[in-house]
Parts: sequence; C-alpha cells; structure tokens
Amino acid sequence: MSLLEQRWEELADIKRVLAKREWFPGTSGNLAIKVNSDPISFLVTASGKDKTKETSEDFLLVDSTGQPVHDSQLKPSAETLLHVEIFNKTNAGCSLHVHTVDNNVISELYGDQGKITFKGQEIIKAYGLWEEDAEFTIPIIYNHAHIPTLAEDFSEFVKGDAGAVLIRNHGITVWGRDALEAKKFLEASEFLFSYHLKLMALKAVR
Amino acid sequence: MSLLEQRWEELADIKRVLAKREWFPGTSGNLAIKVNSDPISFLVTASGKDKTKETSEDFLLVDSTGQPVHDSQLKPSAETLLHVEIFNKTNAGCSLHVHTVDNNVISELYGDQGKITFKGQEIIKAYGLWEEDAEFTIPIIYNHAHIPTLAEDFSEFVKGDAGAVLIRNHGITVWGRDALEAKKFLEASEFLFSYHLKLMALKAVR
Amino acid sequence: MSLLEQRWEELADIKRVLAKREWFPGTSGNLAIKVNSDPISFLVTASGKDKTKETSEDFLLVDSTGQPVHDSQLKPSAETLLHVEIFNKTNAGCSLHVHTVDNNVISELYGDQGKITFKGQEIIKAYGLWEEDAEFTIPIIYNHAHIPTLAEDFSEFVKGDAGAVLIRNHGITVWGRDALEAKKFLEASEFLFSYHLKLMALKAVR
Amino acid sequence: MSLLEQRWEELADIKRVLAKREWFPGTSGNLAIKVNSDPISFLVTASGKDKTKETSEDFLLVDSTGQPVHDSQLKPSAETLLHVEIFNKTNAGCSLHVHTVDNNVISELYGDQGKITFKGQEIIKAYGLWEEDAEFTIPIIYNHAHIPTLAEDFSEFVKGDAGAVLIRNHGITVWGRDALEAKKFLEASEFLFSYHLKLMALKAVR
Repeated sequence: MSLLEQRWEELADIKRVLAKREWFPGTSGNLAIKVNSDPISFLVTASGKDKTKETSEDFLLVDSTGQPVHDSQLKPSAETLLHVEIFNKTNAGCSLHVHTVDNNVISELYGDQGKITFKGQEIIKAYGLWEEDAEFTIPIIYNHAHIPTLAEDFSEFVKGDAGAVLIRNHGITVWGRDALEAKKFLEASEFLFSYHLKLMALKAVR
Repeated sequence: MSLLEQRWEELADIKRVLAKREWFPGTSGNLAIKVNSDPISFLVTASGKDKTKETSEDFLLVDSTGQPVHDSQLKPSAETLLHVEIFNKTNAGCSLHVHTVDNNVISELYGDQGKITFKGQEIIKAYGLWEEDAEFTIPIIYNHAHIPTLAEDFSEFVKGDAGAVLIRNHGITVWGRDALEAKKFLEASEFLFSYHLKLMALKAVR
Repeated sequence: MSLLEQRWEELADIKRVLAKREWFPGTSGNLAIKVNSDPISFLVTASGKDKTKETSEDFLLVDSTGQPVHDSQLKPSAETLLHVEIFNKTNAGCSLHVHTVDNNVISELYGDQGKITFKGQEIIKAYGLWEEDAEFTIPIIYNHAHIPTLAEDFSEFVKGDAGAVLIRNHGITVWGRDALEAKKFLEASEFLFSYHLKLMALKAVR
Repeated sequence: MSLLEQRWEELADIKRVLAKREWFPGTSGNLAIKVNSDPISFLVTASGKDKTKETSEDFLLVDSTGQPVHDSQLKPSAETLLHVEIFNKTNAGCSLHVHTVDNNVISELYGDQGKITFKGQEIIKAYGLWEEDAEFTIPIIYNHAHIPTLAEDFSEFVKGDAGAVLIRNHGITVWGRDALEAKKFLEASEFLFSYHLKLMALKAVR
C-alpha cells in the first residue's frame, strides 16, 4: 500500500466512525490528513458529499494552498483554507472539523467571552496534560462567512502540533500529530462540552 | 438497472439510514421519490409496515393523484396526498416525512406562532443560503385528522423545489430536487431543532 | 419451519432490535410470544441472560401457568406470571416488558396519580385510535417485590387484546395481537414519554 | 481454546459492546479479566489504544502486582493498580472502568457527600438485592493524579466480590465474579445515574 493509500484508509476510517455518531448533519463537516511534508500535500474531503457513504470520490489531494494536485471534477471542501493554516504552521498530521449540537451550544453560550476553560476533569489527560490541576482552554472565534477572513482569525490560534478551536454557531476544528491524536482531542472536547452543559443544567435545579 | 429500480434503491437507502436513527417510531413516517415527470408517478411507502425491515413490499408506485399504478394488495401511506401536492406543484424529486421527539416539541412550543425562524447558524447553508445573516423559516400547520384538509393547508407552503413544513404534534415533511437534497434539509432541520431546544434550556439556568 | 420455530424467530428479531437500543440494561426486561392457544403455550425469555447475545437458550416454552413444558435447566423469567395474565385473559399474541430511563421517570412523576393520559398527538394513532381528539391512558401500578401480588394488581388492567401498563420505578409492559402490534405500542409509548418529559422541561423555561 | 484465549474473547466482547456505546471517549477507560488465581494473573487493556478497534495488542497479561508477565512493548493501562486491588482482595473475575458524561456529573454533584444511595428502584435487583426496600450505595472518592494514592483510597471500598466505586470527575469502576456480573453492575449503575439526573431536572420544573 502506498503512503497515499495508507493515509486515505486512515481518513476513511475516521470518517466512518464519526458518521456513525451522526457528526456530519446535512453534509456538514470536513476532514484532512497530511500525505507529504515537503512540499506539503494533504487529502481533504470533497465538497457536498453525503459522508455516511464510502466512495472513491470522498477525498482529493490538495497542495499547500489548498488547490487540487491533479485535474479533478471534485471540489475541495469550502473550508480547506483552515486545514491549510494548520499544515503550514505546525507539524500536525490530521485535522478534523465537525458540527455537533453540544459544540454549537457551548460556542453560543461562551461566544461573548471568546473561550471556554476546563479544569479538574480526568479527561483533560487526553490533551497530554497530566497534572492534577491542569486546565485546557478552547478559543471561540466569530463565524465569518468569508472563508479567507475566517482562516485568518483561525490562524491566530494555531500554535502547536495539536489543538482545538470553536467557531461560533458553526462547529469545532481539532488537529493532532496523527489521526489518533486528532480524534482523541475531538472526543475529549465533545465529552467536556456535554459534561459541562449537563452539569450546568443540574446545578441550577438541585 | 431500470429507472424504477434505481429510484427504489435510493429510497431504500434513505429508509435504512433513517430507521437506524429510530426516526420511524410505531411504524410512523412515510417517504416518496419521483420516478417519472410526465405523467407523474412516484414510489411511496406502503402503509403500516415496520420500517426497520427491508422487503419487496416496502414501496409501491402511485400516480399523480396518489392511486396505485398497478393492482396491488398494498395500500399507499395514509399521507400520500401530501407527497402528491409536492410532486404536482414543484420539480422536487424526493419527499420525506418523519416523527422525532424534537420536531414534535418544537411544533408544540411554536405552534401558536405558526412558524419558527432560524438565523445566525452555519448549518443554514444546508438550505442553500450562504449569506452571513441568512434566515430560514419553517411554517407550522394544524394537524387535521382529515388528510385532504391537511393536504390543502400543507399545499399553501409548497412553493419551491425544496422546502420544509412542520405539522403540529405530528412531524416534519421536507422535500428537495433529489434524495440527497431532501435528506440534507431534513438533517439540517433536526439539528436546528435540537440545538434550539438545548440552548433554550441552558440560557434559562446559566 | 414449524410454528414454534417461526415464533422463536419473531421474538428473536424483536429482542435483537430492542437490544440495539439498550433497552435491556443489567439483564433486565423479558419478552413472550404465544405459540398455541388451546392449550395455551408461549415462549418466554430465560432468566438472567445477557440479552445482547443470541443463543439457543434465549427462550423456553411454558404453559398457561408459566411452567416449562419440557424438562430444562433454564428458568423462565421471574416475571413470567405477568405474561400468563395477558395470554389467559386476552387474545394477545405477544407481550414485551422493558426498562428505560424515560418510562421509569414518567412512572415516578405520575405514580401518585396512578396513570398518565396522552392527547392531541399524532402518534396516538399507533394505538389504533384515529379520531382527532383521541386520548390514551396508561395506568401506573405499584411495584410489588412479590411477583404473584404484582401479577394480581397488573391483571386488573389487562382488558383488551392490546394494551400498556407502567410499573412504578420498574418499567413498561405492552401487549398486542401479534409481535408487530406489541412493538408498535411499545415504540409509541416510549415516544410519548420522551416527548412529554422534554416538553415539560422546556415549557418551564421559555 | 485455552483459558487465556477464552478470557481474551470474553474481554474483547465486552470491549466491543461498550465501544459501540461510546463509553471510551478519548482512548479513556480500561478493562481487566482474571486468568489464574494462584498465582494471580489477569489480562488488562494496553495503554493509549483506540478502543473502537480490535487488534492482537488490545490486552496484555500482568501479574498480581500489575507487571507484564511476558516481555512486551505494550504498556499496561496507567490505572492497572486499581484492578490489582480488586483481584488481590476479592474473588472477583472481571473489573471494568469507564468514563461517561452521566457518571461524571453524578460524581461531581454528590462528590462532597462522598457517596450516592439508590433506593426503591427495580434495577437494584441487578446488584443481587431482591428486597422491596433494598438500597445500594456507591462511594465517591477523590481523583488523585498519583495512581498509587488513588489505588490506596480506592482499596478501602473494595470489600466484596462485586462492587462499584465512583472517582470524582473521572469515571466508575465496577467488578463482579465474572464478566457478566461486572457488566450487569455497570449497566445498572449507569441506568440509575441517568434516571436520577433526569428525575432531578424534571422534579424541579413540574
């Protein structure tokens, strides 16, 4: 299996797992995995597909500017520029963007503060933070309809090889050194969002 | 594969996906896909079947008035007249009707207002609206037990080739130019309903 | 396929579908399907099994008093006496008992009133009630640990060939003329419970 | 099939079932099953794996101190010491640790009281308690980042061959004489947590 085929399989596997959770409502969401570093090329989901299906047109190879490497009728996801920022600025190997009800609700409730911080939760270890009082902050940015502007705002928070950013009333983008780490960041974040919302509701009534 | 078989497969696929989400409680729900335009004929779910099963009697072909094209022991879904309105008035190719807890709760909470409007949510792009301040309104109609009366009220809101209408304490009907678009409208609507309800509950307690 | 094998398959199918929904937590729940009417015999789930598994020991045949028809190491479900009441008093062909979070919460919130009544909901048609203002009442009985006493209380509400009874902080028992009808009653009831709880929570905060 | 292979299959089966429920977010959770009693050895999940996958490196055999029996590149789960306490102090055969949103919320709401007690619920029978007024208490301990300290605190509540302990903002550990009993305790506990939270929210608004 070539490197390209290997990366395709890894991304297809993540797509399958996340699709089973219904994390791509209305054909939303987009995923990317790096294939080469020099020059940078990565596989990204094609635009407008039903992500519960598996076909040979699910992903296409793009370069460091997000342009298709080969002639293709497929269009890269409209938000490819966000993945471009991640692969150009860091050593990340995989980047995932999904819409869930809980990440949207968190992004709206904490949008004015521009961030949400989690602390005192075991699952924070998934971010590679092992101290008892470790905290993890996820920035929340404005959802510009103009993608280059969104990518520019987003870029400000792309600092390490793994990370997470919420886009208000839109969704979360996470990335990691490889597919497993990106998925780990995603699952930890969604767990913390759901936990936070449920605790907030119950603390108010007990 | 004939056109009829192709459409059957498309509708069977949607039925399978929605059944996995438990969106057909108590044998509820009905689905339709257009086969021919002139004269109009479409496949519609047979009445009273358990939609988690797949059989050769799941759908039957009906004409522009909702009557079976061939002699059959099968009865078209009781609500076939709503699909008739859609296929006669627009160029829609597929129409879906499901009952979910969240679409029922939304329909009751906003039923007196006769509609619910969504704005400032990324997922609104699934309706084909790409502006930053785009809004999407879903009308809510009274649930007449008399289906011809229900179909008449419903018809008033069947204006484009894709759309969505809530029936109070009953469910949602969505339609689109093809199966993918109808499903996209359905998923975007259910996402917005769930988001709206969760945000409403949490805004009240924070 | 013999009648016994046919009924086994029908019950196995329902078990599989309900197990996927996680409706048998902690090996709870029990299911029964009538095989013969004169004299009465029915298949019932064996006690203490993990219902997410499928084995040749899932069910055993019992008589009109709930005693095994054949020598067996298997023990009929502890609550077989409730199914006995149903098959002896009515023409029901199938009876299902499951624990869900929502049916338990409803049974506790409305337990003192001894019943809950639903009205003005489309899904009520699943109970065979087609009028616009139809209502459906589900009695809620006390959860006696002594099963013969529980069965006696339960029996008071076993009146038709299809029905539903809640046992407080325990679960629901539904029955119907055949497996499809019993399942339809179950799904309609769970839908109404979930709808009712969600609407109650949201009406309080809007 | 050897005893080792048999136990491997049992644990793999439980892992598969719990993974489908998304009970291992962010590679969290760990599972153990005893293989021999004298001297004690048990299979435990390897550290850092994606538990939705099935591989020959999912588990490794460790001794009564939690050290690998064979040379291996695999690292036993960081929390193996908790399973060590269980297998050394009791006749338990299986031990399961998972993170869920609901067990985390319960652990935080009742953490200051150091326990939560359930009573008057049918599902309590899953703990082997059959009296009408039986109650079951689950202790809640502080989540020390230092695992030996956590194991020491945990050990205080490891008294019988089956049991359950919550770790605050972390997760639940349950154990039983065999895999079925451990799973039964886990499912009963999660059911009671979800029931308790939902009832608490609804009692406040009705």
